[in-house]
Amino acid sequence: MKRHFDDELKQLKEKVFRMGLKVEEAVAKASGALIERDSKKAEAVLRGDQEINLSEIEIDELGHELIALYQPAAVDLRFVTMVLKMTSDLERMGDQAVNIAEKVIQINQEPPLTPSVDLPKIAQTARAMVREALDAFMEKDAKRAKEILEKDDVMDTINDQVYDELQKVMQEKPETVPQGVALIMVSHNLERIADLATNIAEDVIYLARGIDVRHHIRERREETTL
Amino acid sequence: MKRHFDDELKQLKEKVFRMGLKVEEAVAKASGALIERDSKKAEAVLRGDQEINLSEIEIDELGHELIALYQPAAVDLRFVTMVLKMTSDLERMGDQAVNIAEKVIQINQEPPLTPSVDLPKIAQTARAMVREALDAFMEKDAKRAKEILEKDDVMDTINDQVYDELQKVMQEKPETVPQGVALIMVSHNLERIADLATNIAEDVIYLARGIDVRHHIRERREETTL
Repeated sequence: MKRHFDDELKQLKEKVFRMGLKVEEAVAKASGALIERDSKKAEAVLRGDQEINLSEIEIDELGHELIALYQPAAVDLRFVTMVLKMTSDLERMGDQAVNIAEKVIQINQEPPLTPSVDLPKIAQTARAMVREALDAFMEKDAKRAKEILEKDDVMDTINDQVYDELQKVMQEKPETVPQGVALIMVSHNLERIADLATNIAEDVIYLARGIDVRHHIRERREETTL
Repeated sequence: MKRHFDDELKQLKEKVFRMGLKVEEAVAKASGALIERDSKKAEAVLRGDQEINLSEIEIDELGHELIALYQPAAVDLRFVTMVLKMTSDLERMGDQAVNIAEKVIQINQEPPLTPSVDLPKIAQTARAMVREALDAFMEKDAKRAKEILEKDDVMDTINDQVYDELQKVMQEKPETVPQGVALIMVSHNLERIADLATNIAEDVIYLARGIDVRHHIRERREETTL
């Protein structure tokens, strides 16, 4: 029984990883579409979202079956309920990639706005955080997960700079307001993806260390950013 | 054993409801702070968030204890795992209320921007959706939950109008760009609260009907909004 359960857990983990890779790809494509002004790439993100949604349902079913069949306790139970939450976070990242793709298609109809802001860096950081959260999950690696939390702070700082920069551009050239606002929204979507990766990282730390670091970390981070 | 479990489930439900009421209060206060330009109210939202975070941890613990102790199956198991997800959604609503409160404190340092946009209506709708999601959850009322999904579509439409309106104001009076962008972010935070209420409503429908409506609904809604 225990061996079967371990096998099934392994399968569950593999499925989450594969779902995560699809999400990472969606984020990468949406970012690429933004940086390269490539509407075709953005459309591919819209088409791919359905597959991510189906993965969530499939993994959700499997997780519930595992609990009902094997009645795991303690850390095994926590692992499965973490997976249930994690797929929901991954699905939401997919939704954010869709939001970005929709904005990109809209922005590409306007003349390019090339402010001195580092949106590519935000996009790259968000994508890297998704991948690192997946890896930390697969390896149950609390140290790696902690690095993601630190990256999230950096992300918030760059984002604030982007907002300030875009506001300046819009004030000086009011005709750029529509693109400027759209880029602020995209930047916000990327920040949300980073936040969702951070949620996963917090759960990995909790699972690896068996303590509720979630709000302790949030508190610490809120103190430093308020 | 079954009676004990039912009693414990009832307690779990009560705790979620009380957590939800705190979140609704935070959303109401943040909205009030925005409409009345009341920074003191906004500061109360920041102070209250810690209590919401603690509720999430407490309910999370209790939910896991219930699964490990009573090994529920089928709909009972689904109910508990739904609660685990729901507390996470409620906690995130609380975070959005905090984001709004922070922006309000910032906006209140600038002269008032009174565009013709209906931000109070968005705030009111978001708050009502939080309360209705809670009620639908308590009554396992799929019909009520479906009404929330319809409200979310309305919400998206008003939000788009607010964006357009604020962009116009910023283009005509570039000196209003900082307040305009801040109000767009607030409007976006309120939309996120509505989305989170919609997630809860979708789970209530799933639980009440035993079918996975989540992505069917999303698809239908995406078709109509794309």
